[in-house]
Amino acid sequence: MTAARERQDTLTKPVGSLGRLEELSVQLAGITGSPRPSVARKAVIVMAGDHGVARSGVSAYPPEVTPQMVLNFLAGGAAINVLARQAGARVTIVDIGVAADLGEQPGLNSRKVAYGTADLTQGPAMTAGQAEQAIQVGLDVLSDEYDRGLDLVATGDMGIGNTTPSSAIIATVSGLPPARVTGRGTGVDDEGLARKVAAVEAALEVNRPDPDDALDLLQKVGGFEIAGLAGVIIGAASRRVPVVIDGFISGAAAVIAAGLVPQVRPYLIASHRSVEVGHAAMLEVLGLRPVLDLDLQLGEGTGAALAFHVVEAAARILSEMATFSEAGVSEKEG
Amino acid sequence: MTAARERQDTLTKPVGSLGRLEELSVQLAGITGSPRPSVARKAVIVMAGDHGVARSGVSAYPPEVTPQMVLNFLAGGAAINVLARQAGARVTIVDIGVAADLGEQPGLNSRKVAYGTADLTQGPAMTAGQAEQAIQVGLDVLSDEYDRGLDLVATGDMGIGNTTPSSAIIATVSGLPPARVTGRGTGVDDEGLARKVAAVEAALEVNRPDPDDALDLLQKVGGFEIAGLAGVIIGAASRRVPVVIDGFISGAAAVIAAGLVPQVRPYLIASHRSVEVGHAAMLEVLGLRPVLDLDLQLGEGTGAALAFHVVEAAARILSEMATFSEAGVSEKEG
Repeated sequence: MTAARERQDTLTKPVGSLGRLEELSVQLAGITGSPRPSVARKAVIVMAGDHGVARSGVSAYPPEVTPQMVLNFLAGGAAINVLARQAGARVTIVDIGVAADLGEQPGLNSRKVAYGTADLTQGPAMTAGQAEQAIQVGLDVLSDEYDRGLDLVATGDMGIGNTTPSSAIIATVSGLPPARVTGRGTGVDDEGLARKVAAVEAALEVNRPDPDDALDLLQKVGGFEIAGLAGVIIGAASRRVPVVIDGFISGAAAVIAAGLVPQVRPYLIASHRSVEVGHAAMLEVLGLRPVLDLDLQLGEGTGAALAFHVVEAAARILSEMATFSEAGVSEKEG
Repeated sequence: MTAARERQDTLTKPVGSLGRLEELSVQLAGITGSPRPSVARKAVIVMAGDHGVARSGVSAYPPEVTPQMVLNFLAGGAAINVLARQAGARVTIVDIGVAADLGEQPGLNSRKVAYGTADLTQGPAMTAGQAEQAIQVGLDVLSDEYDRGLDLVATGDMGIGNTTPSSAIIATVSGLPPARVTGRGTGVDDEGLARKVAAVEAALEVNRPDPDDALDLLQKVGGFEIAGLAGVIIGAASRRVPVVIDGFISGAAAVIAAGLVPQVRPYLIASHRSVEVGHAAMLEVLGLRPVLDLDLQLGEGTGAALAFHVVEAAARILSEMATFSEAGVSEKEG
């Protein structure tokens, strides 16, 4: 990081004039251990899972949309496909808990832990064994991606109903009341929002998750895709691969990952500030300042794929720019 | 624009969930007249010019840096070269008023109006004829770029001392006191900042530019690169090419362009919020909300080249995503 910072100060621009690009480049150097890091090989890992609570009117879309969107991802027609293609990133789709049989689908990584979680308003969303299994799926998927060549990874999610467990997680960790961190997700109306807040309140009341025990929290009020992405984050950090965190659901996964393994924190890059209420509290818990602020609230890894461009710019500036002496440019006076 | 908005609402995502990408895509559709615009052919036009006031200690760098950086641009070693390359954009470098003989340089577009402006603290920065000539250079350069194929253009600047005329322009148009809109530019110290504020105050006192006459304002307290970029902006808008405005100096050019031809406004995209004091007032005058906020303060078109990725993402989302019916995904309930 010191070498990267020193190099930044010799490049043909006023010191600090590339702001967050310079900060990001120094972070990348620290993560990778290289003073001139490359982020050429990029992947977005999208974990898909269903939620028992989704049948309780907490989402604007029916649960059938989860498997339908998985097929859309595989066909290349979803937003994450478009944005990953633009960013030169591959997309890996993982069925970690979709409540439907997807069959053999070319390109689908089938690692289903169960057909969706149990309804977290009635009891734990999953068993402790399921939570551990889902984290292991994330570790395994990251490991496979690493073996294919991986310089930069993004987290993405799909799961109708998954803002509800994410709100339950951030409410528990931040201590904020559920109404303060529960938003409209894919666009529920006022009545749907009231049902969501009530569902988060019930989930916390029924399960009493321990804010200081991330595994307990994950098991009781989490989701399979959240668990899997926590595994992805831990796996990436352990291999010194920078992880770009998407929005609200990925943020919940990052909170869980940082709870399980606090050492992951410096490996995280927050891609964007989501419109979803509660995301600000999540960024605060994680101590992260987002790269973009584009009023996004889609998930799938879309914000992270957009942020890839800025992260790559940071790496390229550090590696490709000429220094003052190379270019024969006069330095600052006085 | 209506067709683009209607298409956005049929794509496989909750309505509005891609926030500013959706807004930008609708703007692009309106600018280009195409409901599925493409921004494949991109260029950054960097105008370089010197400033008489630069000899008065208003910059942290000596004026020799302007021609040195032009050579650095031509060699491909500057930040704008790196970022334009990443964005798939060509870079056009124009000597519109560098105070040195650059000779015949491969790739340099030599359109010098004069060897730098006169010192705006002593009288008009340029003659009315020079101002018109410099605007014409911008129109000509844009026209040539358009003939090469151009879907998206960015403005970039190089000119030691050019935050001083830019501050004078925004102070005049906004009515704010010079101290409120004069910043540290490339990084002057407190004494240098005091000299800059005094220079802007003197420029306004000596020249009394008319805030309602953009040509008068440009001639008295502007710069050749600012005039040239105003021409680029007017030329692009007249050909229905969206223009991505870089930071503070490009913003001054946009203020001049919008003063000369108010119809350019809907063709403008503000790339980023600059650290430079006074940029906020400029964005307010222009009525623009920036795409990025990355603590940049370099110029050269760097912020605009970074924003190209987001603008391209907006266009691609509109063109490449599947609709609900194409993908067989259920729509929102109720």
